[in-house]
Amino acid sequence: MTSFAPTRDLTPRRMPAEWEPHAACWMGWPQAALWGGDLKAAEADYARVAQAVAQFEPVRMLADPSSAARARRALGNSIEVIEMPLDDAWLRDSGPAFVRTGDAGLAAVHWRFNGWGGANTAFTRDAAVGRGVAEHLGVPVIPSALAMEGGAIAVDGAGTLLATDTVTFNANRNPGLSRSHAEAEFARTLGIRKVIWLPGDPHEYGTDGHIDGIACFIRPGALLFETDGGGDPAGAAINAANRAVLEAATDADGRPLELFDLPGAPAMPGKQGVGDWGYCRSYVNFYIANGGIVMPGFGIKADSAARAAVQQAFPDREVVQIRIDTLAAGGGGIHCITQQEPALPTPESPEIT
Amino acid sequence: MTSFAPTRDLTPRRMPAEWEPHAACWMGWPQAALWGGDLKAAEADYARVAQAVAQFEPVRMLADPSSAARARRALGNSIEVIEMPLDDAWLRDSGPAFVRTGDAGLAAVHWRFNGWGGANTAFTRDAAVGRGVAEHLGVPVIPSALAMEGGAIAVDGAGTLLATDTVTFNANRNPGLSRSHAEAEFARTLGIRKVIWLPGDPHEYGTDGHIDGIACFIRPGALLFETDGGGDPAGAAINAANRAVLEAATDADGRPLELFDLPGAPAMPGKQGVGDWGYCRSYVNFYIANGGIVMPGFGIKADSAARAAVQQAFPDREVVQIRIDTLAAGGGGIHCITQQEPALPTPESPEIT
Repeated sequence: MTSFAPTRDLTPRRMPAEWEPHAACWMGWPQAALWGGDLKAAEADYARVAQAVAQFEPVRMLADPSSAARARRALGNSIEVIEMPLDDAWLRDSGPAFVRTGDAGLAAVHWRFNGWGGANTAFTRDAAVGRGVAEHLGVPVIPSALAMEGGAIAVDGAGTLLATDTVTFNANRNPGLSRSHAEAEFARTLGIRKVIWLPGDPHEYGTDGHIDGIACFIRPGALLFETDGGGDPAGAAINAANRAVLEAATDADGRPLELFDLPGAPAMPGKQGVGDWGYCRSYVNFYIANGGIVMPGFGIKADSAARAAVQQAFPDREVVQIRIDTLAAGGGGIHCITQQEPALPTPESPEIT
Repeated sequence: MTSFAPTRDLTPRRMPAEWEPHAACWMGWPQAALWGGDLKAAEADYARVAQAVAQFEPVRMLADPSSAARARRALGNSIEVIEMPLDDAWLRDSGPAFVRTGDAGLAAVHWRFNGWGGANTAFTRDAAVGRGVAEHLGVPVIPSALAMEGGAIAVDGAGTLLATDTVTFNANRNPGLSRSHAEAEFARTLGIRKVIWLPGDPHEYGTDGHIDGIACFIRPGALLFETDGGGDPAGAAINAANRAVLEAATDADGRPLELFDLPGAPAMPGKQGVGDWGYCRSYVNFYIANGGIVMPGFGIKADSAARAAVQQAFPDREVVQIRIDTLAAGGGGIHCITQQEPALPTPESPEIT
């Protein structure tokens, strides 16, 4: 049995917002077994995202030993490749949730990860990635028995967390979980004082309705909310149900939330998902980097309005839009494959806000 | 959202062994909806157990408001009845795991309880009982996102815990849980330093192989192990597999475990379980009270040898054996329906060992 007795002061804990300064961005390299004939195209999408993020901050690319050589060839010398056993390559979900700790250090919350409620044993490598990343960095691990994924939560860095019922309380992840248990676990691990529960998306196959396909904080008290793009009446109703909760909610400090529209993409019946996955046409599934935003594009007319809305929400950041057809067909976007490692204060930059 | 910020020093934590002094024993009163025509017989079994335990220590009987009057009539004035919403009446599993805390107080670990991996919503009242008991006593709650039941763990009070794979890692409770996650959660909540993982019982319908039908600590380093009683070759093989692990194991202090035999009951084909439950013919499913043991009997020849083995294991305690036909038909024994509340040190009894 491994001992988890902390040797440092790990409380209080705070999960910084994604817009706070990063030390790096963690990603994973796609696996041949899952992408089959689409592997080369998937690798190209991952590489373009990595290169775009690397303009703003260091990227640390995990690669299964079996694919590390391919990763290094594709990425060149500017991006670090770290070998670690992987089943798949969605670091937002399998990776740790980094928190700031009481001694002004970092710790890594390591969720129980079970492949988005999938088969019990198919994701044993990815289930160890949260710990693996922490050990690579030498930061303490905070294990959590909650089945959770980074894409299923959004934080404002100031005590508020968004999550969805269709993920958190799904019997494929946490059968019988009570709301108070979930809230207590977010409080313990991430320092959360208020959880806003969105209904989620019962029809979204794959992740059961991740928040990172619905909305994201842009600062405390304000959100970008992806509006329905049309062509899917059931999806529009789900979208409205999630919006209604956010419009009525208050955050950890009792503030109502200001919602800014991010115009969504229309349904694209011609675009198919890979295997069982649905095509992910979410624009809000972007990554906030140091000084930049790396956001999805699908080669459609709606791309430019989405980009404009994101630029307006983050006027001081450079917005880079990347076409991610294969990644989207695999069921995810750019937020899904990235995981920020917060920067710690330095003498030159003593305060992180 | 409820706040769980502790106002007291809750670390380090230690779950006392069942043989340490108790303040009380918590039980629950059976529900008409579940027992149907067997209700009166079930009530009689529960009442006999409560009266037997009450010879040794106070009993606090929870009763759903709908059945509190029946409980009071059956139990008389000597046993306290506390109204609390209940679905069922197995306090070992739905109740809290009491731990001693850093300030020499008590706290209550409140597991995620989901009705032994059953339907997601059928046990919402019982899922709140752990917290309800803690609030009744005014002790801090330590919520755990682990789906767990008190009957699925056995502790020696000195850092060692026994648990079974077939419960802990069952997809109906904790899909995708890793061993290190489970061990970390037992360390955090109960102060455990070493978990001994038994295979459990894949054939045991109902609880999927609780440890309290297999073995129990009688002191640190020593166990009563219930031997196979015959008449069920598959059960005998499972029994042997569990025994083999215990024979090879060492505890938190590196000691091998001394195993004492508790001769099991033979299969009783004539005795049927209620509904979907199997008849519980376990003798090791007893309760250790202050100065006493309250153990099951089935009205068969094997009862006396079992009683003798328990008496030998606890020479200083009075052993009371109670026939529990209806309770056993409901799938459980005496340990399943009882939950000890540890006593705190007093000026007269300053040390608890």
